[in-house]
Amino acid sequence: MTGKLIGVGTGPGDPELLTLKAVRAIERADVIAYFAKQGNSSNARGIVASLITTQIEEQLGYPVTTEIDRRHDDYKSATSAFYTEAAERVAAHLDAGRTVAVLSEGDPLFYGSYMHIHVRLSQRYPTEVVPGITAMSGCWSQAGLPLVQGDDILSVLPGTLDEIELRDRLNGSDGAVIMKVGRNLPKIRRAIEAAGKLDSAVYVERGTMANGHSMRLADKTDDVAPYFAIVLVPGWSTRP
Amino acid sequence: MTGKLIGVGTGPGDPELLTLKAVRAIERADVIAYFAKQGNSSNARGIVASLITTQIEEQLGYPVTTEIDRRHDDYKSATSAFYTEAAERVAAHLDAGRTVAVLSEGDPLFYGSYMHIHVRLSQRYPTEVVPGITAMSGCWSQAGLPLVQGDDILSVLPGTLDEIELRDRLNGSDGAVIMKVGRNLPKIRRAIEAAGKLDSAVYVERGTMANGHSMRLADKTDDVAPYFAIVLVPGWSTRP
Repeated sequence: MTGKLIGVGTGPGDPELLTLKAVRAIERADVIAYFAKQGNSSNARGIVASLITTQIEEQLGYPVTTEIDRRHDDYKSATSAFYTEAAERVAAHLDAGRTVAVLSEGDPLFYGSYMHIHVRLSQRYPTEVVPGITAMSGCWSQAGLPLVQGDDILSVLPGTLDEIELRDRLNGSDGAVIMKVGRNLPKIRRAIEAAGKLDSAVYVERGTMANGHSMRLADKTDDVAPYFAIVLVPGWSTRP
Repeated sequence: MTGKLIGVGTGPGDPELLTLKAVRAIERADVIAYFAKQGNSSNARGIVASLITTQIEEQLGYPVTTEIDRRHDDYKSATSAFYTEAAERVAAHLDAGRTVAVLSEGDPLFYGSYMHIHVRLSQRYPTEVVPGITAMSGCWSQAGLPLVQGDDILSVLPGTLDEIELRDRLNGSDGAVIMKVGRNLPKIRRAIEAAGKLDSAVYVERGTMANGHSMRLADKTDDVAPYFAIVLVPGWSTRP
């Protein structure tokens, strides 16, 4: 009998935002696996730290960070080899009959690191995915910002898009979530202004963390933003 | 001292997908409020039924259902008056110093009924929003379908869009979630096929419910679908 693979969403940061199902999956797992940059601790592990007692821990440390350009073939082959090796380390536990909970910040199958394990192992082992609260949901909840309603169209966009494309996509959507803000903030701000949505846009930093905060983007006087900040553009302009 | 308004996401259906924070908010609230169609029970209340003991219950029963066209002014004025009256019933509890948890299936600020209360009361009373697992996240988790990764663009689209617009938006996105499927399914299917994405599209019915199931859209031989079914089109075509 092989063990079961469980992708577990840990939510956006507040341990209270774990689901009951995630708590039980972590408590009952034989092995807790998580990705982390080499030399860093795992954010996902930090969120669930109080639930880890006697489980075996398997840290999957990324070999590449920012030294190689992400679009370069060397980056792709290095990361691919790493994910394959990480999956084999998880598979060894499954072969030994151990249930493995692979932690993923936010929601496992929504921009989550767990996806790299899932596509390599879910056809080989019994697999379950426990959804988690996404970072974007943590952000609009913390900001108290109604995002989309009724027949609204929502676009989730990376801040890496160029300014014209960002503007056009904002014009073509009701609500929007712009991720990966960081140094893209000045460009994002210009695109939102060009789409006529600067008045309603909201900037959120560390949503659901103890030191999280949000403000109208128009009121943010500097362009300093962490990579994981999010800009929210609400829809629902025709409120009854 | 007025009470606190708390919008509480109950998740997509499985009571195990409540967050710890939602459980505590419901257990500690003086009043549990929820929307329901007249004569029907509330799905959100059903999800949290085991947590309701001595709290006061406040059912907010929709006055209009399908008798009036949604685009008609009479519909808008009737629903607006209803939401205002519902908000005042919640406000009366808050004025009396009672904490009110307003339940919302899925995530409160993401297409949630709670939004109508939030926009009417959050400026007048201390307010908190507890995010919930969205229906779409419950669906892709149940289907085990990696949805989006990296710089993918995701579009959340109503199935009510016309066929050409659906096709164009699918062409312009990496991943997509199509909601409100129901009788729009034949049109949605044609749009997905025209966008060359039928092979990867997945149909999900009652994600995270006990009788939920998913299948490749191409394998679904009929066009019978409930209104709340979801079609998922995965991105992440360049997997490393």
